[in-house]
Amino acid sequence: MEKAEYDCGFLEDVVDDGRVSFEASRREQYAGDASPHEPRTPDAVVWPTDSEEVSRILAAANERGVPVTPWSAGSSLEGNPIPVAGGIVLSTYEMESIEVRADDLHAVVGPGVVYDDLNERLARDGLRFPPGISSGDLATIGGMIANNASGFNAVRYGETRDHVRRLEVVLPDGRIVECGGDVVKTSAGYSLKDLFVGSEGTLGVITEATLGVEGIPEHRRAALVTFPTERHASEAVAEVIRFGVRPGAIEYVNEGTVEIIDEYADDLSLTAAPTLIVEVHGNTAGVEEDVEFVRSICEDNGATSWESAAGDEREEIWRARRETYDAVRSHRPGEEPAIVGDVVVPISRYPDIVEAVETESDDLDLFCPAVGHAGDGNLHYAPLADLDDSDAVERARELNRRIVKRAIDMGGTATGEHGVGIGKRKFMEREHGVAVDLMYDIKESLDPNGIMNPGKVLPDDGDVTDET
Amino acid sequence: MEKAEYDCGFLEDVVDDGRVSFEASRREQYAGDASPHEPRTPDAVVWPTDSEEVSRILAAANERGVPVTPWSAGSSLEGNPIPVAGGIVLSTYEMESIEVRADDLHAVVGPGVVYDDLNERLARDGLRFPPGISSGDLATIGGMIANNASGFNAVRYGETRDHVRRLEVVLPDGRIVECGGDVVKTSAGYSLKDLFVGSEGTLGVITEATLGVEGIPEHRRAALVTFPTERHASEAVAEVIRFGVRPGAIEYVNEGTVEIIDEYADDLSLTAAPTLIVEVHGNTAGVEEDVEFVRSICEDNGATSWESAAGDEREEIWRARRETYDAVRSHRPGEEPAIVGDVVVPISRYPDIVEAVETESDDLDLFCPAVGHAGDGNLHYAPLADLDDSDAVERARELNRRIVKRAIDMGGTATGEHGVGIGKRKFMEREHGVAVDLMYDIKESLDPNGIMNPGKVLPDDGDVTDET
Repeated sequence: MEKAEYDCGFLEDVVDDGRVSFEASRREQYAGDASPHEPRTPDAVVWPTDSEEVSRILAAANERGVPVTPWSAGSSLEGNPIPVAGGIVLSTYEMESIEVRADDLHAVVGPGVVYDDLNERLARDGLRFPPGISSGDLATIGGMIANNASGFNAVRYGETRDHVRRLEVVLPDGRIVECGGDVVKTSAGYSLKDLFVGSEGTLGVITEATLGVEGIPEHRRAALVTFPTERHASEAVAEVIRFGVRPGAIEYVNEGTVEIIDEYADDLSLTAAPTLIVEVHGNTAGVEEDVEFVRSICEDNGATSWESAAGDEREEIWRARRETYDAVRSHRPGEEPAIVGDVVVPISRYPDIVEAVETESDDLDLFCPAVGHAGDGNLHYAPLADLDDSDAVERARELNRRIVKRAIDMGGTATGEHGVGIGKRKFMEREHGVAVDLMYDIKESLDPNGIMNPGKVLPDDGDVTDET
Repeated sequence: MEKAEYDCGFLEDVVDDGRVSFEASRREQYAGDASPHEPRTPDAVVWPTDSEEVSRILAAANERGVPVTPWSAGSSLEGNPIPVAGGIVLSTYEMESIEVRADDLHAVVGPGVVYDDLNERLARDGLRFPPGISSGDLATIGGMIANNASGFNAVRYGETRDHVRRLEVVLPDGRIVECGGDVVKTSAGYSLKDLFVGSEGTLGVITEATLGVEGIPEHRRAALVTFPTERHASEAVAEVIRFGVRPGAIEYVNEGTVEIIDEYADDLSLTAAPTLIVEVHGNTAGVEEDVEFVRSICEDNGATSWESAAGDEREEIWRARRETYDAVRSHRPGEEPAIVGDVVVPISRYPDIVEAVETESDDLDLFCPAVGHAGDGNLHYAPLADLDDSDAVERARELNRRIVKRAIDMGGTATGEHGVGIGKRKFMEREHGVAVDLMYDIKESLDPNGIMNPGKVLPDDGDVTDET
């Protein structure tokens, strides 16, 4: 255990009994996320229950210059909530109210609500909050907003940002602000809600949100399609998007990953080949037309097999994608992803970035599973390494640097949905140039004492490593 | 003509020959917009051709503390580009390049491109930029981004904001920044592009944008539907949205407006009744199912007539809405809209706000045409008055205050698409509360000398009237 750096005893005066802990065993649960970034144990953990309590905590911490790192579920992949500077971890988990306003197609939710729980509640009204993230059983709405998370279904329904209508945010000095409104559109001044979405807890704490939701589509058909090469598969994706089908999901899985999943889930009997999983959504019989259209595009691009399904069988098709995380992690004992790539490129360049990952992994002698929310131009690659093998880890990092550079040169981004956290800070200057200076200005303006989640998003010259 | 307040002679040193004018006749063309707000003649007008030139102009003006007001087409409805503090009007009209990248479903455009011209160019590739604004023959992309404009088709395709992937912006000190990327999603740091969208030229000048575009839908069917009361019509709207149809457009026209249009365009033979115009879009035969579904909802809500059409006849149906602007303005000689309301409410409250406009207009003895992009919960109301009749004008303003207050109390907004400009500043505190302080902080941080479009968006204690 690390030595406490900040005296956080003042929390006992501002938080209700039982809502603060200084115990090592509790604090250690808030030291690291789902990434390989080095954990750091905070000096205290608080679990406030409402915005007033959050306000008191932040005001008191701000006065004392004590860092505060908001914590959602710890399922993030870039060290986003690791309290690298020590101080307080502020868990939003107790703020878990859900109020569904079906008539307005929106829900008012607390930041601690788990994604799957929200969708379970919404399903009673035939509704869903649709970004479709992979870690929906863990991730909370607050974390999703803070990272502008998205996943499987963003290609049709958009990112978390696209659904945020209103935010209640507590600023570092304790002020409680409302941003946006319970409306689908507005032109009333600067869009502050969009500033907080994706700011990863570095500007304030989100304590409530109004989220737009969608009807559950009446018809869903999934298809599993294989291709002779990675390029054939990725070119089919670009063409489906180009022709405006807007599938509910279109996922790419490279051949190496299909092999691993097939080994891991041996009842699936997958063919080791570059694979797409496409799902078409709709409320009318038009869904069948869309499925046939996607099929014809895949066949024009050399598809070697096509298997489609609705109902329960649809879930079987999805298993071929959903098992990825566990399959990759159990593939080689002692090895795990040394980095998790998350680039996005313009869709026409998707074949090029897919090929780049293949070529550069070979060049660096890395075994590199790759999957992606292909319809968004989003590609994840996760080179496996023994994390104690510094040479292998360095090669994995080099792979990431090369791919991110290529993506940015194509007009793309270093991170499509995982956020900057610790690991992507070193790419911010490359991606944004002068705009990074504006981000500093905004950070300085909203958080002059720099207490909110220090060491994240914006690069600095401090001692926080950004080499993972 | 007003006395020049700022010596803008320095512009001759920073702008190419023929791109600056100090002539009264030219300057007067940039004094007022399409609103009743009082015009003000600028001291100089410049027409830069690229971001480098804009950078030189802003840097020189910033050094001297000379106000700069960006100018798009002057078609705005809240005085947004009126140079109320004098100084320079910077027209973006010469920056009118269009590069369509059909494979990526986006276009890279200059701010001076007219909305209809962009769509004419995109149509060659079967594409369109879809917010569907009423003034598409005049309004430019730069102005649309600055105001976060939208219109007829936002209910299905979203606001301008939803389509902006990347912006090039020149800051007041001359720095040229790139915000966002040519991608459909990103989580890489603070979303600066979203800060500039809707900032009405108060933070910098937009010099280029990458805009996401959509395929032109293969099938479009429009329907004109009448109802026994305003409430029946507005309840039908709320129900269509509630059931997730997502029409391409759903417009409300109140009975008084239908009468005016029928008089103005006497070949249309409209029935004087509360009316909806609904359009359904799609690429499959499912469109017919959607049309029937909308029809059944309208009938359940007491519809008294239903007329639907595709092809050229569809345009006839739309005339009943498109003639509104001219019909209202020519209705009573000597009278014109004293204000143009633009509130948005949660869709379940649409019937209430429609009724409020009816009741309050009666109470204030105003004849008040009202139309709206109903599917967004957006309502425009335009009480007619002789602008020299100060009592009538004051009653119109009182109507607006009452309706905006009601809308905000319902969780709504003072402006859905026209922007704040001059006329909505007085509602900013009511709508945003503490958040207005953050907007000031951001303004101060990005434009410390306050040269960018002073007197707009943020309320101040200065001498600029906000009483219209």
